[in-house]
Amino acid sequence: MPRVWYNILPDLPEALAPPLDPETEEPIKPEKLLRIFAGELVKQEMSKERYVEIPGEIRELYAKIGRPTPLFRATNLEKKLGTPARIYFKYEGATTTGSHKINTALAQAYYAKKQGIERLVTETGAGQWGTALSLAGALLGLKVRVYMARASFQQKPYRRVLMNVYGAEVYPSPSNRTEVGKRFLKEDPNHPGGLGIAISEAIEDVLRNESARYSLGSVLNHVLMHQTVIGLEAKEQMKEFEEPDVIIGCVGGGSNFAGLAYPFVKDVLDGKAEYEFIAVEPKAAPSMTSGIYTYDYGDSGKLTPKMKMHTLGHTYYVPPIHAGGLRYHGLAPTLSVLLNHGIVKPVAYHQTEVFEAALTFARSEGIVPAPESAHAIKAAIDLALQAKEKGEERVILFNLSGHGLLDLKGYDDFLEGKLQDYEPEEIPALNGMI
Amino acid sequence: MPRVWYNILPDLPEALAPPLDPETEEPIKPEKLLRIFAGELVKQEMSKERYVEIPGEIRELYAKIGRPTPLFRATNLEKKLGTPARIYFKYEGATTTGSHKINTALAQAYYAKKQGIERLVTETGAGQWGTALSLAGALLGLKVRVYMARASFQQKPYRRVLMNVYGAEVYPSPSNRTEVGKRFLKEDPNHPGGLGIAISEAIEDVLRNESARYSLGSVLNHVLMHQTVIGLEAKEQMKEFEEPDVIIGCVGGGSNFAGLAYPFVKDVLDGKAEYEFIAVEPKAAPSMTSGIYTYDYGDSGKLTPKMKMHTLGHTYYVPPIHAGGLRYHGLAPTLSVLLNHGIVKPVAYHQTEVFEAALTFARSEGIVPAPESAHAIKAAIDLALQAKEKGEERVILFNLSGHGLLDLKGYDDFLEGKLQDYEPEEIPALNGMI
Repeated sequence: MPRVWYNILPDLPEALAPPLDPETEEPIKPEKLLRIFAGELVKQEMSKERYVEIPGEIRELYAKIGRPTPLFRATNLEKKLGTPARIYFKYEGATTTGSHKINTALAQAYYAKKQGIERLVTETGAGQWGTALSLAGALLGLKVRVYMARASFQQKPYRRVLMNVYGAEVYPSPSNRTEVGKRFLKEDPNHPGGLGIAISEAIEDVLRNESARYSLGSVLNHVLMHQTVIGLEAKEQMKEFEEPDVIIGCVGGGSNFAGLAYPFVKDVLDGKAEYEFIAVEPKAAPSMTSGIYTYDYGDSGKLTPKMKMHTLGHTYYVPPIHAGGLRYHGLAPTLSVLLNHGIVKPVAYHQTEVFEAALTFARSEGIVPAPESAHAIKAAIDLALQAKEKGEERVILFNLSGHGLLDLKGYDDFLEGKLQDYEPEEIPALNGMI
Repeated sequence: MPRVWYNILPDLPEALAPPLDPETEEPIKPEKLLRIFAGELVKQEMSKERYVEIPGEIRELYAKIGRPTPLFRATNLEKKLGTPARIYFKYEGATTTGSHKINTALAQAYYAKKQGIERLVTETGAGQWGTALSLAGALLGLKVRVYMARASFQQKPYRRVLMNVYGAEVYPSPSNRTEVGKRFLKEDPNHPGGLGIAISEAIEDVLRNESARYSLGSVLNHVLMHQTVIGLEAKEQMKEFEEPDVIIGCVGGGSNFAGLAYPFVKDVLDGKAEYEFIAVEPKAAPSMTSGIYTYDYGDSGKLTPKMKMHTLGHTYYVPPIHAGGLRYHGLAPTLSVLLNHGIVKPVAYHQTEVFEAALTFARSEGIVPAPESAHAIKAAIDLALQAKEKGEERVILFNLSGHGLLDLKGYDDFLEGKLQDYEPEEIPALNGMI
């Protein structure tokens, strides 16, 4: 298991634009960030250290939740496709909370606890992040409060139960607990909510409680850095097999993609290797393929710092696809820079073709993938079929970021022919509405 | 990973009583069994070989579904209990179908495929066995048909979806597809069904289709033998830690208990070691603590051979506890013999105290256990607390046979205070009604 995380900041081909204070539009002052996040995380967010040591206690917790996670070769899938390509995947669904999110949840809870913080507050969309932070809180002795998009809260009651099992409080968002929530409920008493609104509620909650801090599950540099444990493990594990040609991950905010890819990106930036990187998003939330690169808020209530990133606009309405973890308007600033420099290539798919790929994978490899992760599978299958056409022996590595055992409603809808695809109707960022 | 399974038959302290033909009450002829089961399985059922080689293809499939499974020490649980005992668990929930059932499902599908059988038919209660056989069929290219107790079919739609994802047909039982099913539906058009009825339907289905065979998920010797891969792995894994004193498993038919325990039982029978074995059952289905040892049918429709075993009577009504995999009236004949000889000790718990233990475990170790497996956790916790009282350093090993991610309804009911405990009202076996 790795002893350090990899921080891409010092290796980026250009310096990151600073986050702006939403009130002044000036670069935000650290003291403002320290009121929202634990101190060590603010430090890591700006760190110029290439490698950051993973504390021993976090490494022990990583072992408890199943790290290192396995890396498998998808031999049955290769046979079914009849491809000369060899397909490998890193399986983050093998962790006890079923996705990669626990990698940063444990780190964030650890530093918060060390600082004497009593409660972490966060948002969750599909529920994977909320689940991970709930367990991290239970393991480290912190209270956890989760604002969950109301549509998911109602449609996925078992995700809520799972967070309760781990001891967390969970509220449907928008709620009457915050001013932001009340504002959206006034617009529509049955407001379905969304990740952007839930983030605003969580931050408002934190700003009212001195002993609480906010946790974010993606987008920020320290979050992506904690996820690099995935890629650092995968690099060692691939040595037993062979060198990959292509590295693939699905993208909402960007954390599981970055987790697998960034340690390999480093070798490309250093001129030591040539890998192709493919970042896969849903056509319903196409921040990479249809968004613009500009300063935008991370939330709907405009409480977060503004970040320079690929965005659809913080008021973008994300259609209700089953891959709830990818329903986000923005993109990690570091990943945005790599996109701009052509180091990472984006691709977008509709959800029905993604579920078709998920079914093929489940029936050949035995694992039912999360709808989010199935986006990476779809890209891997497409590449493997291209390789077959060209008679090329490509070596594909993708991140299977989570299992889909709490997403069986989506599979049922797909099997019953009830799933629909969505084209984004209006992208606020393209109309200057940011 | 082990290269052989361990067959306890030649080491049992007394010979097993032969299964009887349900029509003649005479020892059943092999040709009758061959119409129901794949040939190699009938051979294994009677085998006198102490070790049976695991074919290479099955070992490859074992690797694909995550074998060897991990063995963890429950350090956080120990701390929470403040016990000097050390608690280890083998985690079968780490397999891709989430329980130990896949170990025999792959073997049964492999031998059936080799024999040219086209379809496997089976029953399922909670759904873990049906899920495992569905995946085994998908991996080996066999059709799978599952009769699922109607109450579970309706209450656990996602288990049914999971089997569909793996490509299986699933019918609620009792159904109109069989004579047995029609008989029970005539009694009650909304009959909730049960494992005993579903077994009868599956067997009747097989007897009508020459190219089909039946698969059973527990009770029989060959099934328990395939599960010994668990204990053989655990023996090797425990060498890195220490020698266990007590070995614990939950018991419905007996297969996960036997899987972990039998390789250790062998050393006791050989006089090489002294282990305590504890088999844990629900008070709602107390075949070990309240049943009698006699010949009885394995199913409600009286189509299976009669086996000599601990039983509550094949007409016993099992109350609707959440641990659906333990809702069975009988017990594996080999385990019954070990009980009679005092080698294995039984204990029974109510479901609320079991869920309480499950919650303690989830919040300290991070894994949400299946309600079935939580019976073993409850026994482990009780032993650890006894050790604390006596100041003893006991070494406890239990089988965490599956995860509970598809059992969150039960957790929700528990957290909401809606769970009730059941005392069996009438045990047919005690009234001579067999």
